[in-house]
Amino acid sequence: MQQVGPRVSCHDYRTILSYNAQLRKFSKYTSMSELKNDRFLRALLRQPVDRTPVWMMRQAGRYLPEYRATRAKAGDFMSLCENPQMACEVTLQPLDRYPQIDAAILFSDILTIPDAMGLGLYFEAGEGPRFKKALRSAKDIEALPVVDMHKDLTYVTDAVRLIRRELNGQVPLIGFSGSPWTLATYMVEGSNSKDYARTKQMMYQQPEVFEVLIDKLVISITAYLNAQIEAGAQAVQIFDSWGGALSYHAYHQFSLSPMQKIVDGLIKKCEGRRVPAILFTKGGGQWLKSMADTKVDALGLDWTTNIAEARRSVGDKVALQGNMDPAVLYTNPQRIRDEVATILQAYGRGSGHVFNLGHGVTPQANTENVGAFFAAVHELSEAYHT
Amino acid sequence: MQQVGPRVSCHDYRTILSYNAQLRKFSKYTSMSELKNDRFLRALLRQPVDRTPVWMMRQAGRYLPEYRATRAKAGDFMSLCENPQMACEVTLQPLDRYPQIDAAILFSDILTIPDAMGLGLYFEAGEGPRFKKALRSAKDIEALPVVDMHKDLTYVTDAVRLIRRELNGQVPLIGFSGSPWTLATYMVEGSNSKDYARTKQMMYQQPEVFEVLIDKLVISITAYLNAQIEAGAQAVQIFDSWGGALSYHAYHQFSLSPMQKIVDGLIKKCEGRRVPAILFTKGGGQWLKSMADTKVDALGLDWTTNIAEARRSVGDKVALQGNMDPAVLYTNPQRIRDEVATILQAYGRGSGHVFNLGHGVTPQANTENVGAFFAAVHELSEAYHT
Repeated sequence: MQQVGPRVSCHDYRTILSYNAQLRKFSKYTSMSELKNDRFLRALLRQPVDRTPVWMMRQAGRYLPEYRATRAKAGDFMSLCENPQMACEVTLQPLDRYPQIDAAILFSDILTIPDAMGLGLYFEAGEGPRFKKALRSAKDIEALPVVDMHKDLTYVTDAVRLIRRELNGQVPLIGFSGSPWTLATYMVEGSNSKDYARTKQMMYQQPEVFEVLIDKLVISITAYLNAQIEAGAQAVQIFDSWGGALSYHAYHQFSLSPMQKIVDGLIKKCEGRRVPAILFTKGGGQWLKSMADTKVDALGLDWTTNIAEARRSVGDKVALQGNMDPAVLYTNPQRIRDEVATILQAYGRGSGHVFNLGHGVTPQANTENVGAFFAAVHELSEAYHT
Repeated sequence: MQQVGPRVSCHDYRTILSYNAQLRKFSKYTSMSELKNDRFLRALLRQPVDRTPVWMMRQAGRYLPEYRATRAKAGDFMSLCENPQMACEVTLQPLDRYPQIDAAILFSDILTIPDAMGLGLYFEAGEGPRFKKALRSAKDIEALPVVDMHKDLTYVTDAVRLIRRELNGQVPLIGFSGSPWTLATYMVEGSNSKDYARTKQMMYQQPEVFEVLIDKLVISITAYLNAQIEAGAQAVQIFDSWGGALSYHAYHQFSLSPMQKIVDGLIKKCEGRRVPAILFTKGGGQWLKSMADTKVDALGLDWTTNIAEARRSVGDKVALQGNMDPAVLYTNPQRIRDEVATILQAYGRGSGHVFNLGHGVTPQANTENVGAFFAAVHELSEAYHT
């Protein structure tokens, strides 16, 4: 593992698979390359850092021309996710362009698990994700298998291994999954949804049926994240994208409590190092205290939360990640710098903050402004860590 | 005003207008019918009540077959809003069906103001509201007039007068407007929007231009709400439907501070009675303390907020309105009753709570379940007011 060469850029899929088969065989016995930049991992554990680490949700995405080029080569979106070589290529693209980025995140989709459970994920142009089969009854849910990581989703762990090899210790790699509640909405609705009417109907009217679905997702997601950790992910994030659509009680019962089980079941240490977990409920700003009580390492904040207040209420228990409004990237470098300064000042001195957007970067963001964002975080944060 | 006959149901528009012209002339000199049920107004002022008052956002809406019939007669949606007789008819429909409802709300649209400012509102079937002209530059905003209530929007005040006459003191009538920020999003985007990209770009990049738009809306909305109060509205609600899309700082600067100006400028007393104002920022659960500091009478809560915690943090300053998840109406009467009981218990004993949904009732709600909702509130709340 020490003598890895330059990044692959044109290996065919078969070569990669054969390489990964070897890698799986030997990974238990070989140590991974030494991590050259561990600022991100240290901040998640609230250990001292020299500046605030930064990455950006969806940093490998459509705002990048090089991403759009790879995506065009891949054809549809799922072909890109399912091809470890291409997933690796797009994962690394933002790092090549922006030297300040302190973490890579596996390029994949949150719906790989429902797909592996047999629902048949596909994407309609301009329509978002769809499933060939949606879950509409107790019988549908009863028949649903949990994922078998040795059979399904090996394309994800193969990608993780390949990315780790190609990163060569440059920055840590984040693995991720959608939350049980978030995945359940897609599985019951069969697609994106505005108000999750069918899912909530099932949740409110047949909670015992809905709990079976949630339990199967807890088992599957735990196995999925642990497989990513074993393959080389050095931190993991749970994306509870639609948790904010729930009532206080429903959030605690159907989203947070299942996430607690996942957090409890995660591998805590790998390669001699703590593997921190981040929990991000978009729209969850009112529930941060309960989220911190899960003993997860860090909480993601969307831009509606005042990070100063968040730190005051939960800062001793967890690190915080966030939380610039992605729309600030529609402005100009000076305005972006001002916003970064405001958020850094609101968090204040000391470690425990990973800078990020409050949600994924949008396709309309321009690459120069994104560069200004990364640069501003590193430049302006130094003063908070002396 | 004492000897009003049965409800009009087939007056033509011309008759109504002529009636309303008379009414406008004499309304200053005649007293309105005595209010038979003031539970809603009393609860907003935290005065003792015999049970928790209830109404439902969008209670005159598509879930009601009688509404769909009137709407079909009217043709398009705006023709319904602009016809005081029909607006009156649909306003009263839920009261006829559900005897427990403690307040009527003017049937209208939040986009009447931008329409009156000359943007040309229209509705595409299945597409939501559109404007013929959107605001894209400082020049567009400079050219924008504020509304003239003596010229524009008299169809709204005519409807208010007619509804008051037809209500005949049965329950109070709520007037309403969209918030400056919420109206601004439609005016800049030209339609509904997922992430308010153009509006936020203008707000972040040209705040001084955006403030001009917001100021014109503050003036217009204040005049609009005061005209509704003078015409007979006995309480008013400001719908800040999209305030929850803003960052902490942007919310305070571009949504809450303008709403504060409106609250300050509202007529406080009419017909010898306090006219309470309700402020509802959907997704604003993190900002309730600042909202209460506006000295508005009541805050609307969406279903993500724990009403027990909300009362603990702001309950002495304001009344609270809400906050059942509208999706509970997809279940059954028993489940609805349980949810109502949970919310009543969370709020606890004493006045200061107006029961409502956390957002508008959806077209898919069934009328029997809605009836169970209203009945449960009145039946179960009595114990909290002895």
